[in-house]
Amino acid sequence: MSHHTYKHIELTGSSDQGIEDAVSNAITKASESLHGMRWFEVTDTRGHIEHGRVAHWQVTIKVGFTLD
Amino acid sequence: MSHHTYKHIELTGSSDQGIEDAVSNAITKASESLHGMRWFEVTDTRGHIEHGRVAHWQVTIKVGFTLD
Amino acid sequence: MSHHTYKHIELTGSSDQGIEDAVSNAITKASESLHGMRWFEVTDTRGHIEHGRVAHWQVTIKVGFTLD
Amino acid sequence: MSHHTYKHIELTGSSDQGIEDAVSNAITKASESLHGMRWFEVTDTRGHIEHGRVAHWQVTIKVGFTLD
Amino acid sequence: MSHHTYKHIELTGSSDQGIEDAVSNAITKASESLHGMRWFEVTDTRGHIEHGRVAHWQVTIKVGFTLD
Amino acid sequence: MSHHTYKHIELTGSSDQGIEDAVSNAITKASESLHGMRWFEVTDTRGHIEHGRVAHWQVTIKVGFTLD
Amino acid sequence: MSHHTYKHIELTGSSDQGIEDAVSNAITKASESLHGMRWFEVTDTRGHIEHGRVAHWQVTIKVGFTLD
Amino acid sequence: MSHHTYKHIELTGSSDQGIEDAVSNAITKASESLHGMRWFEVTDTRGHIEHGRVAHWQVTIKVGFTLD
Amino acid sequence: MSHHTYKHIELTGSSDQGIEDAVSNAITKASESLHGMRWFEVTDTRGHIEHGRVAHWQVTIKVGFTLD
Amino acid sequence: MSHHTYKHIELTGSSDQGIEDAVSNAITKASESLHGMRWFEVTDTRGHIEHGRVAHWQVTIKVGFTLD
Amino acid sequence: MSHHTYKHIELTGSSDQGIEDAVSNAITKASESLHGMRWFEVTDTRGHIEHGRVAHWQVTIKVGFTLD
Amino acid sequence: MSHHTYKHIELTGSSDQGIEDAVSNAITKASESLHGMRWFEVTDTRGHIEHGRVAHWQVTIKVGFTLD
Repeated sequence: MSHHTYKHIELTGSSDQGIEDAVSNAITKASESLHGMRWFEVTDTRGHIEHGRVAHWQVTIKVGFTLD
Repeated sequence: MSHHTYKHIELTGSSDQGIEDAVSNAITKASESLHGMRWFEVTDTRGHIEHGRVAHWQVTIKVGFTLD
Repeated sequence: MSHHTYKHIELTGSSDQGIEDAVSNAITKASESLHGMRWFEVTDTRGHIEHGRVAHWQVTIKVGFTLD
Repeated sequence: MSHHTYKHIELTGSSDQGIEDAVSNAITKASESLHGMRWFEVTDTRGHIEHGRVAHWQVTIKVGFTLD
Repeated sequence: MSHHTYKHIELTGSSDQGIEDAVSNAITKASESLHGMRWFEVTDTRGHIEHGRVAHWQVTIKVGFTLD
Repeated sequence: MSHHTYKHIELTGSSDQGIEDAVSNAITKASESLHGMRWFEVTDTRGHIEHGRVAHWQVTIKVGFTLD
Repeated sequence: MSHHTYKHIELTGSSDQGIEDAVSNAITKASESLHGMRWFEVTDTRGHIEHGRVAHWQVTIKVGFTLD
Repeated sequence: MSHHTYKHIELTGSSDQGIEDAVSNAITKASESLHGMRWFEVTDTRGHIEHGRVAHWQVTIKVGFTLD
Repeated sequence: MSHHTYKHIELTGSSDQGIEDAVSNAITKASESLHGMRWFEVTDTRGHIEHGRVAHWQVTIKVGFTLD
Repeated sequence: MSHHTYKHIELTGSSDQGIEDAVSNAITKASESLHGMRWFEVTDTRGHIEHGRVAHWQVTIKVGFTLD
Repeated sequence: MSHHTYKHIELTGSSDQGIEDAVSNAITKASESLHGMRWFEVTDTRGHIEHGRVAHWQVTIKVGFTLD
Repeated sequence: MSHHTYKHIELTGSSDQGIEDAVSNAITKASESLHGMRWFEVTDTRGHIEHGRVAHWQVTIKVGFTLD
């Protein structure tokens, strides 16, 4: 994790299962077009409420990947 | 989500299951007296420790609801 | 929770299961040498990505314990 | 502004005109049921985008009013 | 402090005596209409100056109480 | 606003008219090459001063758009 | 904007028109005694409420000027 | 508190008595050369320790005064 | 205060008297086992409420001491 | 620096020499594919430790460039 | 560093050499007209980029000096 | 960097040479009694001024090390 240059992007993933699943969905979607992702940091955890209960979670992450 | 006025309140829910369950407990309790809840944001995640392990989680959320 | 003096330490726990498990792992490890832990607060939630998916979670907590 | 006790609430107002109008809309709506509002502080300025332009503004304010 | 749901409100109390007295004044005023207050956190400490000295203190607190 | 993955970018727009116009200029410029923009959040409001008055405003926004 | 040393001061301007006008009022007042102002940053946007509507805006800015 | 322009300065006062006294000392000292001080906000509360007890308090305040 | 290396720890002290007394209690307790404490910074001021009034204060400080 | 629209990206550069060199390495790497970079802001300064000494520095910067 | 009152000012210094040199330049310039400077704190580290490399550094510091 | 538990401590190192040297001095001093240090993060950069120039730098770092 040392002599590289990294770029960071910010993504929001959604899930009706929970926080970990929302993060995984964002990373899976991003991996379709982006290679070299190495780490993430959760920066925001939100959700939508419908009929008095959690309808889905929306979790924002900052993702670092190597610039090659 | 546009031409309304929203009010926000802050709640803390508890659970011995985990973060998502503590959020759900807070929203379920609030929905007994409050209608029109639309979204939430997690602002604090804490917990109590007993005998060297997590006894329960306490998660604080900000909740937005429509003023009608 | 009143007439004591508390000291706080900061720990990072890891897990390939999720956030709650990473917190539990940190508290279990710390309890081998530290007694009187009373509460924790999550201060950072990160993780490592391998082959386009979450490899493990790393959750940082601040832990308070009684000074006796 | 001195020997009173104040309570603060947080509101989000909307407008397709701009920031000042969104704040005014929130205060006008709140004044239907709340008296003694004295000051506000803008805590968040957001908006929705439709067809590549700003559709409406959403401004969040904290409002202080006297408890009598 | 565990299996309850808490709601938080924000208050500002005033005093010409000092910080602790301003906090007490806010809590005393709120207790006229609110039950179940459990803890507070100081979020802002301000004051007014008249004739080159402190005329009164204004201390803002977040108060948590049980939702029953 | 639920089952999508969003990416966020940060832009600064300029205007000699005011804050709302600077935001609109940034969104108009970005819409030339970017589709699916959904919301923005103002993160910084600055400006340049010439001859003792505001010469132009520079407003920084975070913009979220759908990843498709 | 490069080989100079800058000093920053913090001002609050008022207006019953809006945010941009409050900023302009602060800069106009400061320019009576201060030369070389180059940029500003908005750090706080507040206002007073009278009779259920905004009476005036108070906007705080940090201003940078050259030390010569 | 409305149609004026305010300037803010930051001061640190000291006292071996406590927080309120340190604030008063800073304001008394500043009032020797500065008129029109209207309010203050505590931004930092520190102190020095000698021989295992508090030797004196150092409290930093931001002070606003009218520009006339 | 110059050519040393310092380590910082975080403590919470309690008192039913007030903020300064809670800080003193934390430092007195820590001085039983720790030497070379030089300064502190208040990072959190909280308290517990019982029967509608402040039961005790809990003040968190960061303490710096020399590593010798 | 006025009538343009800017986009910001976030990069982390590495160096075993020091902070300035880590920033330069990030900018040199980014300049291979990105034109119009105008300014940067350091947002995080970290490093890795091996055998009790700094092995390399990792400095994160936000970079602004013109959108043309 | 105890029984004095301190005032703080904020300065930005520039250098094409690096961070330490930019700080020194700001302090040298300020010392022409200001006496009794005692400490500084770095609050912002920025720079300008020309032709794909760092042209100069701009470092903002808060400086404390005694009021006598 | 994955299946371990880490503990973090906070240190301040001093140097009359510059920022990197102050960090190295803190890590060298800590390595006399602490093993397994893995990374650091700079959290505060300060210094003392004597006779109108920087006398020494004081840099605070958070250090993570493995709990084994």
